[in-house]
Amino acid sequence: MKVGILGGGQLARMLALAAHPLGIETTVLCPVEDATAAAVTRHLRGSLIDQRLLGELAHGMDVVTYEFENVPLESLRFLDGRVAVQPSPRALAAGQDRLAEKTLFRALDIPTADFHVVEGEADVARALSVLGPPVLLKTRREGYDGKGQVFLKAAADGAGALERIGGGPALAEAFVAFEREVSIIAVRDAGGGLSFYPLSENTHEAGILRVAMSRPGDPMQPLAEDYARRLMEHFDYVGVLALELFQVGDSLLANEFAPRVHNSGHWTIEGAETSQFENHLRAVAGFSVGSTQALGLTAMVNCIGELPALASVLAVPGAHMHDYGKVPRPGRKVGHVTLRADNPADLEARLGRILHLTAGTAAPAATPADANT
Amino acid sequence: MKVGILGGGQLARMLALAAHPLGIETTVLCPVEDATAAAVTRHLRGSLIDQRLLGELAHGMDVVTYEFENVPLESLRFLDGRVAVQPSPRALAAGQDRLAEKTLFRALDIPTADFHVVEGEADVARALSVLGPPVLLKTRREGYDGKGQVFLKAAADGAGALERIGGGPALAEAFVAFEREVSIIAVRDAGGGLSFYPLSENTHEAGILRVAMSRPGDPMQPLAEDYARRLMEHFDYVGVLALELFQVGDSLLANEFAPRVHNSGHWTIEGAETSQFENHLRAVAGFSVGSTQALGLTAMVNCIGELPALASVLAVPGAHMHDYGKVPRPGRKVGHVTLRADNPADLEARLGRILHLTAGTAAPAATPADANT
Repeated sequence: MKVGILGGGQLARMLALAAHPLGIETTVLCPVEDATAAAVTRHLRGSLIDQRLLGELAHGMDVVTYEFENVPLESLRFLDGRVAVQPSPRALAAGQDRLAEKTLFRALDIPTADFHVVEGEADVARALSVLGPPVLLKTRREGYDGKGQVFLKAAADGAGALERIGGGPALAEAFVAFEREVSIIAVRDAGGGLSFYPLSENTHEAGILRVAMSRPGDPMQPLAEDYARRLMEHFDYVGVLALELFQVGDSLLANEFAPRVHNSGHWTIEGAETSQFENHLRAVAGFSVGSTQALGLTAMVNCIGELPALASVLAVPGAHMHDYGKVPRPGRKVGHVTLRADNPADLEARLGRILHLTAGTAAPAATPADANT
Repeated sequence: MKVGILGGGQLARMLALAAHPLGIETTVLCPVEDATAAAVTRHLRGSLIDQRLLGELAHGMDVVTYEFENVPLESLRFLDGRVAVQPSPRALAAGQDRLAEKTLFRALDIPTADFHVVEGEADVARALSVLGPPVLLKTRREGYDGKGQVFLKAAADGAGALERIGGGPALAEAFVAFEREVSIIAVRDAGGGLSFYPLSENTHEAGILRVAMSRPGDPMQPLAEDYARRLMEHFDYVGVLALELFQVGDSLLANEFAPRVHNSGHWTIEGAETSQFENHLRAVAGFSVGSTQALGLTAMVNCIGELPALASVLAVPGAHMHDYGKVPRPGRKVGHVTLRADNPADLEARLGRILHLTAGTAAPAATPADANT
């Protein structure tokens, strides 16, 4: 079984590491010479729109998948029909455009923050008066990790705001004073079977995910599963999907979804019976999916900018290091640490130690390629 | 941190897979072109006694370790002094010679079966009269998986027996009618700190390990730990060591030890907080060792000769496939399946299914290189 992966970052790397024991051969297509995935799998170096290389994948692979949502749609369209592409390119298309995404949430009766389409400056003022303030103004495409968005606290902040995010088209969203952000990592197999990991509870720093904690038994689990199910069935989805949600009271508002393995699911490597990476591969390759049951309690801490000393991490009980083999750079996700524990008190104490060891490494991403989520 | 590994079989492969997330770079030295480890790490192809390649390892690595016990001692002697070699070459030397091994067990007050040194035919008859019958006649070197030994049921079986195992020097051992075979996987860090995995209970087929089950809380655990501790402290050992023991009543008799990660510890990948592979690397690289705590109950089943269909394995709850990427061949260890469960009934049911799927694949190893334990 051969699986092609568009993109060669840490998500592709962890997919490849999960593939080896299964006897699944992966090949990544990535323009970056020292792609982090290249250390652990075959690497086709070149552009994601290079038709010769795409043709090589189409010819040699049983299925092609992708590790980030900004894969050019024309590449998926080129592959589609020549080779199986999973998850569905339709899911990728919807995930690439905030307006399409929000419109879909509405159509599927999944609550979201109120929003307003912004084509030009005049729409910003209108959005501010209709939705807020405060309002979040976001680019429709290629936003990630807090990039491509501005927070408009007052009506006066609207002037020049669109320019600051690079011009339209954009989307204005009513600011949600949420109690917490959770995400659900779901997986759907080729036969339509659905599995869900326990909710992840996410904390950000400078717009970048810093901590994700597993929440087995969370009271919001059934609602989150219901929303993820609607999305996956709509797309006849195969593979892992992540849905980010804001909790307000007893409601969950959908923020965005990602048609791929997700940073907030990295804890599943040690914290679940089967990791999101293995299950994504199993699903897209047409196999049955493994149990998503949690093994105790888990927290994942991102290492942003630089890695802590390995010795100091390994001295923390229940700590598992994940070094992506990247050159350190401010704002770059260079690794993560997973902590497992059998009770909340142990987990809390271990988390405190790892947060301390990785403090000061969080900073805004320097370039889009650095912050592959 | 760079770790060289002598040998490129499945043990090296699983060490390399455990090394990537730690940011530890491994290089294997192995004469086999399509060494199974080469798919996941850097491969120096050549003889284990090639001084140019050994020099390359000595020059480029922080520490060198080994994945099988028949590494030529002169290679370790060449490396020793030029680069750190762990575990100690003294442990390897003792493990390579059944007489040295048994003599050491005696010296450390670790019980073993009675034995008798065999230099020639006359010693076989003497051994039969002193120790038995029945008696096991074994080569002193390079035995593995039931190779290089004959079972002498009656005094008359002694004639020609030595020739059948390739001539002397050999060792005759009193046959032990043991109740079960267990092994303990132990790890000692560079500071002398000791950790022990729960006992493995092992079942063989045609002389090859077929099933290893984790036995957390086994009443024989303290005694097994005590024996492993004596061995490791004797060698000032650093890394993972496996000690195979026969249980007779309330006693444990040492059969043999292996100065390396071991087939009966493969279940630790999913069944323990930290795998034997990660802990071996952490120990030899000078880091602290991770928790050896069991996660539920685990059974490991070897796939011998050929692999079962992946889809059929993945359909079993709690099953985790480990394909070594080897060409199938009778008697060859080509992969293993780990089963995890939260209770004995589930484990038993899952084990039954996997044994059925892998039935008929067990057969004697064709060549020594096939049966790296």
